[in-house]
Formats: sequence, C-alpha cells, structure tokens
Amino acid sequence: MEVFERSFEESVASLETMLRNGRMTRFRTEFLALHNYDQAKIFAEFDSEERQKVYQYLAPGEIADVFDAFESDNIQLSEGYFLEMENSYAAAVLGEMFADNAVDILNSIENKEKVNIYMHLMPNTSAREISQLINYIDETAGAIMTTEFVTIQEEFTVKQAYDHLKGAAQQAETIYYVYVVDEDNRLKGVISLRDLIVNEDDSLISDILNNRLITVQVNDDQVEVAKMVQDYDLLALPVVGFDHELLGIITVDDVLDVMQEEADSDYSGLAAVDVNENHATPIQASKSRLPWLVTLLFLGMGTASLISQFEGLISTAPVLSSFVTLITGTAGNAGTQSLAVAIRKLTNKSEEDAFFASFWFELLTGVATGLVVGIVIAIVASIWKGNLFLGIIIGVAMASAIVVANLAGSLIPKVMVKFGFDPAVASGPFISTLSDLTSVFIYFTIASLFLSHLS
Amino acid sequence: MEVFERSFEESVASLETMLRNGRMTRFRTEFLALHNYDQAKIFAEFDSEERQKVYQYLAPGEIADVFDAFESDNIQLSEGYFLEMENSYAAAVLGEMFADNAVDILNSIENKEKVNIYMHLMPNTSAREISQLINYIDETAGAIMTTEFVTIQEEFTVKQAYDHLKGAAQQAETIYYVYVVDEDNRLKGVISLRDLIVNEDDSLISDILNNRLITVQVNDDQVEVAKMVQDYDLLALPVVGFDHELLGIITVDDVLDVMQEEADSDYSGLAAVDVNENHATPIQASKSRLPWLVTLLFLGMGTASLISQFEGLISTAPVLSSFVTLITGTAGNAGTQSLAVAIRKLTNKSEEDAFFASFWFELLTGVATGLVVGIVIAIVASIWKGNLFLGIIIGVAMASAIVVANLAGSLIPKVMVKFGFDPAVASGPFISTLSDLTSVFIYFTIASLFLSHLS
Repeated sequence: MEVFERSFEESVASLETMLRNGRMTRFRTEFLALHNYDQAKIFAEFDSEERQKVYQYLAPGEIADVFDAFESDNIQLSEGYFLEMENSYAAAVLGEMFADNAVDILNSIENKEKVNIYMHLMPNTSAREISQLINYIDETAGAIMTTEFVTIQEEFTVKQAYDHLKGAAQQAETIYYVYVVDEDNRLKGVISLRDLIVNEDDSLISDILNNRLITVQVNDDQVEVAKMVQDYDLLALPVVGFDHELLGIITVDDVLDVMQEEADSDYSGLAAVDVNENHATPIQASKSRLPWLVTLLFLGMGTASLISQFEGLISTAPVLSSFVTLITGTAGNAGTQSLAVAIRKLTNKSEEDAFFASFWFELLTGVATGLVVGIVIAIVASIWKGNLFLGIIIGVAMASAIVVANLAGSLIPKVMVKFGFDPAVASGPFISTLSDLTSVFIYFTIASLFLSHLS
Repeated sequence: MEVFERSFEESVASLETMLRNGRMTRFRTEFLALHNYDQAKIFAEFDSEERQKVYQYLAPGEIADVFDAFESDNIQLSEGYFLEMENSYAAAVLGEMFADNAVDILNSIENKEKVNIYMHLMPNTSAREISQLINYIDETAGAIMTTEFVTIQEEFTVKQAYDHLKGAAQQAETIYYVYVVDEDNRLKGVISLRDLIVNEDDSLISDILNNRLITVQVNDDQVEVAKMVQDYDLLALPVVGFDHELLGIITVDDVLDVMQEEADSDYSGLAAVDVNENHATPIQASKSRLPWLVTLLFLGMGTASLISQFEGLISTAPVLSSFVTLITGTAGNAGTQSLAVAIRKLTNKSEEDAFFASFWFELLTGVATGLVVGIVIAIVASIWKGNLFLGIIIGVAMASAIVVANLAGSLIPKVMVKFGFDPAVASGPFISTLSDLTSVFIYFTIASLFLSHLS
C-alpha cells in the first residue's frame, strides 16, 4: 500500500508550515496533487487558524472535492467547518459538491436558519437539486441517491449519445451508465458506456438499449439497495418514483458506505455497544456503555430475586448452587447463537420464512442441541458428585433451559419486527440476561421436585 | 424492486416445462433474456435431469456467464455442477469464465485429478491466466484479483488508447480504467475512461496520466483492499508485485463480496455460530452449533467446580447465591462490549494503537463503569436485603468483576493477534464464560473475608 510519497505526518507538517508562512502557491501545488481522500484526512488535522487560510487559498470547487471525500461517519465534523466559513463561501462550496453529499451536511446542521441562508446564496440549479433530495427519509434509496446522472432519448444514435455524454461528463457522478427516458422522464432502459463503445456509431439507442431494468423505488430501504447492487454487480442503480419516473441513481461507492454502516450497526447491536465509539476519554467511553449495562442490571435483578425465593432449597442442598452459572451461561450461549442467526436472516430478508415453520425448526434445533449438551453434563455431574439423581436434574434443567433460550433468541427479534421495532435492540447480552431468568426458574423448579433424592 | 416480469416461481416452472418438452429455442430466448444473476438463481432450482438439458442447449460461453454470477458462498454448489458435465464442456465453460471466478471453482473441487484434466482441455490462454492466479493465498489481494485488464503505453495518444480499449472491451472485466505500463510491465499510471472521453483525441497519455497511484501488494490482506476501495471511491484497484509490476486488478464488485464476507465472519465470531448457516434440518443446524457450546460447557465446568469449593460459605450464608448470576451476567455483558470494540478496532486496523496505551484506557473505562454499576447494585442490595455489609460486598465484587472482564474483553483479542491467531475466535460467549470464572472467584473471595458481618 503506497499512497503518500512521504509519511502522513510529514505531509501534514509540511503543508501546515506553508499555511503558516503564507505560501499559497506551494500549498496549492502540493495539496491539489493529492487524492481527495488524502486531502480530507489531512484537512481534518489542521487547526482552525490553518483552516481559515485554506478557505482563502482554495476555490469553493476545490474544497468541495475535499468534503465530497469525507466518510459518512465524519459528517458531524463538517458542520463545524461550514459554520466557520463565510456564508457565501460555504454556500458556494455546498453548491459545488455532489448533491447527495451536500444534503448529508445540510441535514447535520442543527441551525436551520443557516441552512436557509446557504440555500438562498447558492446557485439556483444546485439549490433545486438539493431541495429535491433533502426531504427523503433517512436510510431509504431517496436519501442516498444523487440527481447528477446522464439521460438520453431512445431516438439517439450511439454517436449522438456519446457526444451528449462527453458534454455531461464533468457534472455527472457516474458516466458509466446512461439512462434512456421518454418525454415524461419515465425510465425506458439503460445503456452502459461499454455498450456505447463496442457498438457502431450509427446504431440506434432503441436497438441496443437494455430494457430488462433493475430499479429500486425511492422509498425502498437502503439495505435492499445494497443487496441489489451486490447481487447484480452494478456500478449504479436507478431510483424511480411511483410512475416509473427516473428520480436519481445510487452509485456503488455509496453502497460500500451503506454496507459498512449496516455491518457496524448489526455488530454493535449484538454486543449492546456502539463499536464505532471513538471516545477521547475513558469517562466518555463508559458513559456510552453504561445505559445498556444498568438496564440489563435491573433486568438481572429479576433473576436475583427469583434465586432468593429458593434460598431454602439451596441451604438444604448447597451442591445445587455450583451448577447455576453453568446452566445460565450455557443457555445464554445457545440463545446468543440462535439470536445471531435470526437477526442475520431478518436483515438479509432473502427468506421471509413463515413464523411457524421457523418456530418448529428452532424448537427442534433447540431440542437436538439441548439433548446432547444435557446428556454430556448429566454424565459429568453424576460422576463428579457421585449422585445420579443430581446428574439427571442438572441434565434435564440444562436441556430445557437451552430449548427455551433457543426459542427466545430466534423468536424475540421476529416479534420485535412484527411490532415495528428494530430487531437489533435484542442484543446478545439482552438475550442472555433474559435467559438467566428462565434458566434459573427451570433449574430450581426441577430440583425442588426431586429434592428428596439429593442427599 | 422489479426484476422478474412474473414471479420467480412462475419463471422457474415455465422454463422447466420448456426443458422437459425439449423446446430448445423457446428456452434459449427466455433464459438468455434474463439478467445473469437471475439466471443463476433459476439454474440452482433445476434438477439434475433438467441441468443436463441446459448443458445441451447453452454454449459454454453462455453458461459461463451464469456461473460468473454465482455468489461466492454458493461456490460449493458449483463443484457438483461441473462434475456432472462432460469434461470437455466443463473445461470450455471454465475457460470462458472470468479467471478469478474459474479459480474459485477449481479451488473448491476436491478431486485434483479432475482439475488437471480441465486445465489440459482448456484453451492455452485461459489455462495460463488461471495457473497464474491459482497459487495465491486465500483472502489476499492475489486471490481476489483478475488478470483481465487493459494496459497501454505512455506514448499512446488518447485516440490510440481509446481504439485499443475498444478492441479489448469484450475480454476485460472492467474497461473503466486503463493501466499505463512500461516495457517491463511496471505500472506507471492510470487513466480513467472518463479522462479519455473528456480529453482531446491527440493528447498524449503521458501528459494526462495520473501517476499518484493507489495500489496494493499481491499479498496484502483482502480487508485492506476493501478499505482502500471504499476510502478512495475506486471502481478498480491495481495489484502490483515486488518490482511494482502490474499483476492484476480488483474490481469493486469483488470488494462488495469481501465486505459481506468479512461482516458475516465478524458477526459470526461474536456470536460463536456461523450466521450463514443454511441448514436443511435442525439436526444439521445443531451439529454446527454444538462444538462451541460443548467447548464452552467444559470451560464453564471450571466455574462450577470453583463454586463447589465455596459450598460451605453458601450454606452459612445462602443469601450470597442470589447474586451469583447477577454478578457473572453483568461482568459478561461488560466484557462483551469491550470485546466488540476491540475486535472492530483490530479489523479496521486504522489505528495500531500501542498495547499499553489501550491497556490504561480500558482499565480506566472498566473502573469508571464498574464504579457506577457497583454503587448502584450496592445501594439496591443493601436496601433489599436490609444489610449494608452485604450491599458493600456485592458492590465491590461487581465493580472488580467488571474491571477484569473489561480488560479481558479488550486484551484477549490483541494477545491472540500477537500470537498469530484469528481474534474473532474470542467470541462473546467465550469471554462471558471466561469472565464467569473470574467473577465467581472475586465474589466469593470478597464474601469470605467479610463473612462475619453476613448474619
């Protein structure tokens, strides 16, 4: 991997020196030669005084490229940068950015007064594009699409289409697909640039266009969009409205960001923590982790008070207490496994399997798993404690606890989806804390029934 | 989302009827009009008799497109398909596929005798491309790259480059970047098709080429490749060898598959289960889940035998047993949180932070988290059981258990990486089972010390 000719720190230091010494020309030469992503990384290192110099030295279009390269999780930072610019400069930068990225930034600015000012100071064409995009719901196709694409009519020849594309190449976010629309802007087909290149100049677009269209609706979930682009190996995917009119396109680089975002949120959900936490101090890190921990602590109090009811049983047969954590722990592990499988199936949505079919499947999986683990622990416990009945109690309790945890892990996320909640809230820690309660109840109830044999 | 004009099941049924009635022309018209991904999905529904008909009706190049569209997780299926074809047909299909995909299939075929037969029957050029790729280590840049790309020399004009590209457009996996190499095949620069289109026909490539190259080494990890493509918004990334010679390119569609694969494996690791399990029967599902469960069961036996040592303590003060699962559970939750954060930082590799810096950070986060949770539970337990000393014991034990679990969760994956293991093996269930042991030890040790006050 080689991106910088010298180290990142050296590049930053040398550019900072140029800014501080007012060496505009050298700064521009060095900075503009870098890839936009590297420019963005370096820009984030500058302090506010240095950034003011940058705003003087770079044209709005040049700094717009830098902001276009910002990662979606750094959008929050951008707000501060825009607020420290002159209003007219900020508006010009936003106008020069790709409309979808400009919308992300405008949406992150809390002060809506400012947003209005920017929209007014911006060139009309940009303001129009942005206001078309700004109202789409977060995480839908509409919210991640761009309106900068190239359209042609089907009467065009290949040559005409190619020349039209050439003229539009500077503006469009991708030129590798050209969309064919009718006079009402309804999508009729798509032509790839590869098709334009390999066909004869005088071929008619209507003869070569691909009309087996793969499209998404503007309100489709971004996960569905990502799945389509991934399955069909697309570089861009057209977004249509209810009358099949072409509203925008989603490019593969935005899909990469969506996939990263979704993977992070699934992973965070399973662990009940924001894995992208980037906290400066341990106090901040604990603040973000404590809400879940304390919530689960109170849920766990239920288990504690349940065990409390069985204190009499435990003082009669203290041997029982040795196996409490083993049973709750193993059931929790089984629950976490079936939870993870269930959540992944829900997010992939490829299979909308029937609720009862999956109920039976998970029940039987739980029974099979529970039987094996139950028999193993029954044998081990019988030999270890020299008490066959104790072994049987532990084994039966373990098997039942696993069956219940397995069902809970697979059904709770489905129930949550049915009631409109995000299934990812049912995290691994949540399922194991919940299954502690049922496991303890099962264990001590079974033990009470066989108490007479435990001596 | 609209892909099929009629439902998927209807399309399959109608194509199956055509195959069974021997209606080759109609089958070809219907089937070949579909997108390759849909062809692949439908092909997977055919039974072996129907597939034999398909092999008669479609040319090797046509069925090759279908296999190129197979998802990477369906590669196992392909093995069976190839083994049921005539050897010469199978070899022709492999020869027509993109080399990187053909390699994936050849690598999945167990019978290496067969692989040799295919390689011999295949056109020489394809066999050469494939044998170049087949030896790269799994999950490296070399293993996911393709050798089908377009190169030019820097003396070319834009027109010459464009014409050359036109000739190569049918073969290459992407034509949207053209790579500029010297006479020793060393990479000098890259030109995007967009650059060719917007520049004048007689411009020299040497004047317009981009020589700030973003490349990966052939042995770089696929995760790094995915990160580069994502960060720099690339459609393809060149792979170079040690002398900077151009060996292949990685296209964005392969990167999407890598990201999916990595997200699934991270997620699976955290839950100690293969989330892509696609098991036909509950027995198969349990078989894949049991190894981890039973391993963790035996690890959990350690905790059980530790509690066993404290049976005397428990019969003296049975109230202690009420809080065992609460303490082990909460510490396990805290450990899972810090584990998830640590693993994500390791896979993103953006920050190779110093071992001791992160040790202190996690220690302090654990202390802060532990203090809050410890104080909360101390107050609750004191009031509930009407015993301040009991509350203090529980609080101190809880806080200490959280600190230890936090450290274990964040340090174990790092230690595993240092010793060359995959950190994802340290799953959430593994960390919680391990932290059960330390939590129980801490809890009962502290309780023994204060025993006299628990009456």
